[in-house]
Formats: sequence, structure tokens, C-alpha cells
Amino acid sequence: MEETRFLLGAKDLPKTWYNVLPDLPRPLDPPLNPATKQPIGPDALAALFPMALIEQEVSSKGEIPIPPEVLDIYALWRPTPLRRAIRLEQMLGTPAKIFYKDESVSPSGSHKLNTAVAQTFYNKQDGTKRITTETGAGQWGSALSIACKMFDITCRVYMVKVSYQQKPYRRSLMQVFGAEVIPSPSKLTKFGQQVLKEDPECTGSLGIAISEAMEDAVTSKNTRYSLGSVLNHVLLHQTVIGQEAKKQMELAGAYPDFIIGCVGGGSNYAGLALPFMRDKLKGGKKTRFIAVEPRACPSITKGRYAYDHGDTARMTPLLKQHTLGHVFIPPAIHAGGLRYHGMAGIISLLCAEKCMEAVAYHQSDVFKNAMLFAQAEGTIPAPETSHAIAAAIDIAKECKKTGEKKTILLNFSGHGYFDMGAYDSYLAGKLEDTECTQEEIEQALQCLPK
Amino acid sequence: MEETRFLLGAKDLPKTWYNVLPDLPRPLDPPLNPATKQPIGPDALAALFPMALIEQEVSSKGEIPIPPEVLDIYALWRPTPLRRAIRLEQMLGTPAKIFYKDESVSPSGSHKLNTAVAQTFYNKQDGTKRITTETGAGQWGSALSIACKMFDITCRVYMVKVSYQQKPYRRSLMQVFGAEVIPSPSKLTKFGQQVLKEDPECTGSLGIAISEAMEDAVTSKNTRYSLGSVLNHVLLHQTVIGQEAKKQMELAGAYPDFIIGCVGGGSNYAGLALPFMRDKLKGGKKTRFIAVEPRACPSITKGRYAYDHGDTARMTPLLKQHTLGHVFIPPAIHAGGLRYHGMAGIISLLCAEKCMEAVAYHQSDVFKNAMLFAQAEGTIPAPETSHAIAAAIDIAKECKKTGEKKTILLNFSGHGYFDMGAYDSYLAGKLEDTECTQEEIEQALQCLPK
Repeated sequence: MEETRFLLGAKDLPKTWYNVLPDLPRPLDPPLNPATKQPIGPDALAALFPMALIEQEVSSKGEIPIPPEVLDIYALWRPTPLRRAIRLEQMLGTPAKIFYKDESVSPSGSHKLNTAVAQTFYNKQDGTKRITTETGAGQWGSALSIACKMFDITCRVYMVKVSYQQKPYRRSLMQVFGAEVIPSPSKLTKFGQQVLKEDPECTGSLGIAISEAMEDAVTSKNTRYSLGSVLNHVLLHQTVIGQEAKKQMELAGAYPDFIIGCVGGGSNYAGLALPFMRDKLKGGKKTRFIAVEPRACPSITKGRYAYDHGDTARMTPLLKQHTLGHVFIPPAIHAGGLRYHGMAGIISLLCAEKCMEAVAYHQSDVFKNAMLFAQAEGTIPAPETSHAIAAAIDIAKECKKTGEKKTILLNFSGHGYFDMGAYDSYLAGKLEDTECTQEEIEQALQCLPK
Repeated sequence: MEETRFLLGAKDLPKTWYNVLPDLPRPLDPPLNPATKQPIGPDALAALFPMALIEQEVSSKGEIPIPPEVLDIYALWRPTPLRRAIRLEQMLGTPAKIFYKDESVSPSGSHKLNTAVAQTFYNKQDGTKRITTETGAGQWGSALSIACKMFDITCRVYMVKVSYQQKPYRRSLMQVFGAEVIPSPSKLTKFGQQVLKEDPECTGSLGIAISEAMEDAVTSKNTRYSLGSVLNHVLLHQTVIGQEAKKQMELAGAYPDFIIGCVGGGSNYAGLALPFMRDKLKGGKKTRFIAVEPRACPSITKGRYAYDHGDTARMTPLLKQHTLGHVFIPPAIHAGGLRYHGMAGIISLLCAEKCMEAVAYHQSDVFKNAMLFAQAEGTIPAPETSHAIAAAIDIAKECKKTGEKKTILLNFSGHGYFDMGAYDSYLAGKLEDTECTQEEIEQALQCLPK
């Protein structure tokens, strides 16, 4: 029988995170103080993050050791399986091989726990008693809730209101792990109050929820803030995914021609892609890296590469990124985790430098392909993950036309067991494909700081 | 780092199912024709099941080969991990070791897919075009829907109405795989119409749903019926669980003193227990086998070991089993998969012969222990599975008192991602513990055939 799962044991767990910063084609542009437009120092972030994470944010070391306490928890579900979607290949009749790194097996159901555990560990070491955060679809909030319970830290999650309503069981899951879940915009923060005053029906956005969580952290005792994507240290923690996948692709006797992942803030894709990107940047590999975003929130494909805030209330420093403008509120598509106006600086730079490409999909195409994947492989992907699947299937179909035996690797970032309401809508023919006009995007981009 | 996951590759997949029938302390009492009270022949079941399954039902061979087509699909998720719940042990401060066989990693979220794939395969071979079945919590219906999609067979699932209402996303999952899901009792069958006429508010039961699915199968063209538990061939297919677990316990360097599982119809527990039971029956091992049931539906601990029907409409042959009477309708506890009046003949005989013990738990105790497990291990168990967890934790606590370093193995039969409504109820303090009085049970047992 042909092996379709490539498994590693605890002894194969990566002992370091891979830091791409020293390998980038050029240095990242530094975060700027919005008032002075000068680069900010580490101290400016100390109210939000423990110093160990701030150091990781700017480290020039290529490898950063994973603390044993973090490895102990990773060992609950890591290394995750690499699978070959052989039944999907057969269904498509493609000569391409499709592999997927299965991050859905984590207790939280996605890759997010990789960084949640790390961030919570460093916070615990630093004496943090309480952490606030935002969540879109609930994957990040679930992960942080689990990690906080493991390190005995109080957790409050501001959950984007539309997701809070669409995914009640994500809320329940966070509550099982003792977290407090607040629909955002809320009346608990000044910024939330302001948003609700202007629009009492506001369904929220990641940008707004980030602002609320940050405001809560800086105005509360012993409280810090935790971000689930975008920042360098978050992407760093996710590189366990790609490091494992490299070993597993060796077990499978193949090397990917295409590496695909969905991007909201960019962390799951970076986690898979960056260790392979090193082979391209330093080893001359010709792999194509394809980041997949929703047409309803096309930061890379239609946004601008510019300095912008990471949140709606303009509390963050200015970060160089692909952005639709911090005032941009995406349509309420089901891939809540991809509803972010900006993009990780690392992913943005790699796209700008043509090391990485981006494509955008409508959600109806995404769900059509998710159904195909589910019916072939048996497993239901998260709406976010399904963006990567859609792009992989399109490439595999192209291979069918050309006869090329390409190897495709995608990140199966999370399962869809908490997203069945979205599948209900798809099956009922109720999914809407919303696309912003170039005018609307230009309008939102007016908010960019001069 | 200590290994807490014991993994096997596709080459370690069992190539045969273990048939306990020839190893039982005495032969099973034969199924009887309700009218004549004489043993039925294979032909009596041919309208419901393909002959290959009927042969397995009565086979005297100790090992039955698993068809390659079934192994190919098993390889999507099997062998499943054996895990050591080391964080739970630490939280309890117990010297006991707690292992759990993780069947929740299957695409359907539970062990049920093991037999769904096998049954569907034999049906496909036999030319079956359509399969009907019942489902309680939805685990079995999900599994059969996935298997039917893989073999291109039409599937209709009669879902116990209370679960249909409690777990809307289970319905969605089945629909993603193309199944038709009908809340039971329904107006689509004569028996459903009769039940609704007597009690329009009836919330249903597994016994009623089985009757509807059987009636549908025998009155429709090219249609057969599939059962998710109870019957010998179903338990047989589940023995891949225990065979893998034996190899994995060897990897872990331990042998279980206690083997624990929840029982509704008995299949998940049998799947884990029977290959170890062979060591007890044939090898003199002293392992204690503990079957855990809900106090609200205590077939073994309070029922009678007698001939009874498997369904409410008395369509099945008479089966010797622990039963609360086929008219018994259990309270609407959240562990829908355990709401069955009867019990597998094999499990019943092993209990009657004192090879196996049974205990019963209230659902509030069950959820309290499920929360403990989740917070330690990060993973949310199904309410059914949580019965096994509660019993395991109680034994581990006993070991803490006595200082005994016992090894406990339980079957983690399914995850609870579709049961978050139950956790909501628990967290809101709204769970009710219902226990039937001995009088009520005696009343129901009046229905037993004389």
C-alpha cells in the first residue's frame, strides 16, 4: 500500500524557530512612530509585549531556540502529519502530486496554537497575569485560550461581532478553556464606544477588535496584548510547520514546485513557506510561492505597499505592508480569519521583491473546491484554508491540461468543524461574492498617513 | 523529551479484523425469529445486509481479512495515535499512567468510520445503490455519509430529533457529503407516522430511528440498511482499534491494568477491548475491563440480560442482550450516542460471564471530568467519550490514594467539536441529571417477549 501520511515523532520536533530576517533580499523597513515618523525603539512596545518577544521581532539570528516548556506542549500534537491527497488527485485526474501539511490536528484546530503557546510562555516568564487579544473566525482566540489555561493566565478575547454571531461554538470552546469572550465592537473600551456611536449596527472587523484589545491591555494592570498574526515574532513561531514539512517531503521523496497558503495576516502561510523560501533565496530553488487571499479583502492583489497602521484606532506604530487602509472594513465573508486590511511585513516584502505571488478568489469558488476536497479526502477544511485548496486545485487542473507532473504543497491550516454554518449557506445557495471596486479601495487608502 | 504519542505508519495497519466469537467463554445465544422463537438463518437478514456481512456476523474464523479497498481508505487516518495523557496525570497528581487511543482523528471525528467504510464496501460489491440508517448524536450518520460518498452510494440518515435540534452542524456535515438527513420520528415511514400520532412532541430515540431506517430499506428498491453498533460484524470492524493499541502499548513499554470505554451499543469499546480480551481469555492476563454507561440509560447496570428486539417497532429478530426494554425512551441527555435501550450481544455475554464490568455515571460528573481533561490535554472530548474519561479519572484518583502505579487505557472514541451546545449547557449550570427509577425500568421491561 502506498504511504499517504508522512509522520514524525517527538524526537523530530524542530528545536529552533527559523528566522528569515537575515535571509531576506533586503532588510524590512522599520516600524515608525506615527507622530515623528522616526523608527521606534524596543521600549515603545514594552507596554504591549514581553521583551523576549520584542527581541525576536528584530533579531538578526538565523535560528532561535524553542524553550523546552514550549516543546513539551508542542509535543501534544506536533509534529503534525504531512498527507498526500491521493484521492483528490485521482478525482481530478491530474498527474500532479498534492501534499498538505495538516495543522488542523492541533487541539485548537489550526496552526494558531504554535505561536499562542510561545507567546503565553514568554508572558508567563515576564509575570503577565492577564492577556487580551482579538479574534476573527475564532481560531486565534481558541488557541490563545488554550495556551493561557495551560500557563494559568487570565484571557479576554474581543471577537469580531459577525463571527461571534456566525460561530457560537467557537465562543463556547474558548469558554471551556476559561476565557472571557466579548463581541467587538463592545462598550468595554472607549474606542468600541466610539465605533458603536457612529454605527450601532457595526459588525466589526479585525482592525477594530485589535484596537479594543490593545486599549484594554494598556489601560489594565498586569495585562499584555497578544497578536495572532502579522508581526515577525508570530511568523517566526510558525516556522515549525515548514521545518517539519521539509523533512516530511524528503520522506515522500519529493520537493514542491508550488507552495500555497491562504493569507489574512500571513502567519500560517509564512510558517510553511519561509523554511522553503530559504532554499530559494540561498539555494537557488525555483519553487513558486503563491499566497491566496479573498477577493473581498485583497490586500496584496489590490492594496498598496505603504506604511499604515495595523489597527483601526491607529494605536499601532506605522508598519510597511500591503494594505487596503486601516479604515477598510471588509464584507462579512465566511473566512473571518482573512478579513484584515493589512499584511505581514515579511510577506509584503517578499511579494514586493517578486519572490512570492498573490492570487485572489471569490468565496463561492472557494467553497466549491472545499466541497471537492472534503468529498475526496473526508475532511472538511476551514473557509480560510479552502482558499489555498482552491488555488492548489486550479494548478492541478492546469497540470492535467499540460501533462506536467508538478508537486504541490499547501498548508491545511485548519479544519472547518466550527464553520458548518458557512457550508450551510453554500449548500443553500446563499453565499454572496462581494468584491470592492477600485474606487472604494482608493477611497479607503485616503486614510494612509502622509 | 518524553514521548507522549505512539505513532504507527500505514505498513502497521492491521491486515485482518479480530473475531472474538471463537474465543468467547461460551457461544452467543442465536438470534431468534420473534414469531417462532426458533433461531433465524442467514436468509432472514438478506433483505437488510449483503451476504458478506451476514457471514461475518456468524463466522467462526478468528481472523477475517480486511479488503485492500478498505485498507486504502483506512490509510487516510489510520493507524490512529495512542497518546499518554501526561498533563492530566500531573494535574491529578496520580502515580497511574493514563493512555488514550485517539479515534477522534478520523475524518468523521470518531471510530464510527471504521465500520462505515467496511459496510459500504461490501454493499457496493453487492450492487446496493442506496443505504438507510439511523443516527443519535450524529457520529454514525457522519461516518456513513462520508463512506457512502467515497463508494458513490446514496445515503439517507434518520437522525433522532432531539439530536437533530441540539446539533445542527452534524446535519450540515452529513449534507456536505451528500446525505439526506431526516429528523426522526418522521412522516416518511409508517412507523414514524404511528409514533407521531401517539405523541406529536416525541423527541425520538435510537430504537425508533432504527425502525424507520429498516422500514425504509425493506420497502425501497436497491436499498439496504446499515447499523452503526450492536451487531457482531460492526464490533468486528472496530477491532483495528485494539490491534493497533496493542502494538502501541508495546512501544510505550506498558500493558494496561484497566481498559475503559463508553458503551451505547458497545462498538467503540469492543473495538478497543476485544483484542486485549483475547489475552485475558486465552493468555491469563488479569486486566480489568470497564464499560461505562449513562445513569440515564443503564442497560447493563440496571437492565435485564434477556432476549429483546433491537428496535422499537420490533422489526429486528430477538437478540440476547442487556436491555431496558425496546419501548424504553431514555431522557434527552447530551450523550446521544449512548441513548440506546439495548447492548451488543458480545459485550452483554462478557459482562454476564464476569469478564467485563459496567459502571454508570451522571452527565454532570461526566462533563466535570471532560472539562478537566480538555484543560489538561487541550482537546475537547465528545460527551459519550467523556463517560470513559470520568471512569478513568476516578481510577487514577484511587491510585493516588493507594499509591498504585496502574496503567489505564481508554478509548477516546470521538471529539466534541459538534457538541459545544452541551458544554454551553454545562457551563450555564443547565445540565440535568436524570435517573430512571427501578419501577420505570421494570415497567419498560414488561415489553420483553415471553
